[in-house]
Amino acid sequence: MFSSIFSPRFSETDALGHINNTNVPIWFEGARDPIFKLFVEDLNSKNWNLIIAKIDVTFHAQMHYGSEMEVKTYIGRIGNSSFDVYQELWQHNTKCASGTAVQVHFCFEQQKTMKIPPNIITAMQPHMFIENND
Amino acid sequence: MFSSIFSPRFSETDALGHINNTNVPIWFEGARDPIFKLFVEDLNSKNWNLIIAKIDVTFHAQMHYGSEMEVKTYIGRIGNSSFDVYQELWQHNTKCASGTAVQVHFCFEQQKTMKIPPNIITAMQPHMFIENND
Amino acid sequence: MFSSIFSPRFSETDALGHINNTNVPIWFEGARDPIFKLFVEDLNSKNWNLIIAKIDVTFHAQMHYGSEMEVKTYIGRIGNSSFDVYQELWQHNTKCASGTAVQVHFCFEQQKTMKIPPNIITAMQPHMFIENND
Amino acid sequence: MFSSIFSPRFSETDALGHINNTNVPIWFEGARDPIFKLFVEDLNSKNWNLIIAKIDVTFHAQMHYGSEMEVKTYIGRIGNSSFDVYQELWQHNTKCASGTAVQVHFCFEQQKTMKIPPNIITAMQPHMFIENND
Repeated sequence: MFSSIFSPRFSETDALGHINNTNVPIWFEGARDPIFKLFVEDLNSKNWNLIIAKIDVTFHAQMHYGSEMEVKTYIGRIGNSSFDVYQELWQHNTKCASGTAVQVHFCFEQQKTMKIPPNIITAMQPHMFIENND
Repeated sequence: MFSSIFSPRFSETDALGHINNTNVPIWFEGARDPIFKLFVEDLNSKNWNLIIAKIDVTFHAQMHYGSEMEVKTYIGRIGNSSFDVYQELWQHNTKCASGTAVQVHFCFEQQKTMKIPPNIITAMQPHMFIENND
Repeated sequence: MFSSIFSPRFSETDALGHINNTNVPIWFEGARDPIFKLFVEDLNSKNWNLIIAKIDVTFHAQMHYGSEMEVKTYIGRIGNSSFDVYQELWQHNTKCASGTAVQVHFCFEQQKTMKIPPNIITAMQPHMFIENND
Repeated sequence: MFSSIFSPRFSETDALGHINNTNVPIWFEGARDPIFKLFVEDLNSKNWNLIIAKIDVTFHAQMHYGSEMEVKTYIGRIGNSSFDVYQELWQHNTKCASGTAVQVHFCFEQQKTMKIPPNIITAMQPHMFIENND
């Protein structure tokens, strides 16, 4: 599991007084940085080899300005060329949101999918999501 | 179907040279305004009666800076107290992204779900998504 | 003057019930697209030749969700290699914000400023800001 | 001085390969949280008593994805009802951006400015910006 801890910003609230839901996909992409590093060691966009196929987010509880949040990032599934990143957003010991991003290992030059190399699979395995691990 | 047409901004691109995926949920929420108006006529947050339960977005094609986009917004399903909004993002006659937002009719004061009133159902019906309607 | 008309989004409100101030620099950059086109006709980032040196924004009145806005974009000053873009945000016949962006004509390859070519100056002149022109 | 350390996100880059300038006002507002707390101890929007009158940001150097950033937040000037917050963005020992936000102590109920109370002035004083303090 990779952990990212941060404070939501006043600009991320909305007129209902809570944090607006559209921030969660932004935070989740931000918290996927350690996953991106497994594929693109220097995070240089010229060497980028991942695309995103699908995201979903389920909202479980309201998120508040003024308290720290944690995004917990797990590998959810490892396929041939694609894999799932499963993420949870926690605040005040409450799971406020959870979701999955389907990422695809991709060659931009040839515009086609690529098999995930075995050494990256090995690096991903310790971060697999196991139910009831909190 | 509700249509929202706009130009993506340079600040919405990312280092891969295309539009970053995290903008789509923001655009989709923005394009749900006509749906919000069916439930909250004056769009006043004090009268708000909707919450969001879930979103998903599938990415079909790269999105580009420099050309107009259209978000097409449909009602996808009408339940007892919840309903689905189905949305598509089009650019250059290409469907670049599509997704569903599950919205719930909700009383903030009593913190509980509410049945969707029949007059709102009637107003939603002309906007139902019908496969192959493009 | 270049005009950009759009509706602010619910996600752009904040917990005070109005539109959050941090959106204005984003909208202003978006509304500079016609200026960018004078310098980079195809808006292709590979041909980009502008950098930003400074921005300022003054907030005159609260901005509201639920009504259209207009950004009016003018050329404020033309220098040797830099120029000012002066912009105003209007809603309900009220000037809600105004500001200036200092842009510099720049060669990314050689990492140095470039003189603004005469044909671009000619194209900018009709858009100069003249006090009391509203 | 208040310090806020964070990693810029991939979604904050733009097609030129660097971090887009429109993020800086967002980060600066986020890093003003400790200032907000001096005025609104619980950060509850119902008790809010600050508005923003003006911001400016000067861009000194390109900002990059993949490395931590620090926002340093100082009090720049204390007036009768308004005050300046001076902020700097640092990355790799380089000052990438700096700017000032003019905040006003404000009563939302009566819609008028309020004198800054002496106890808040006392709390602000240790955070005054002193030239060459880095």
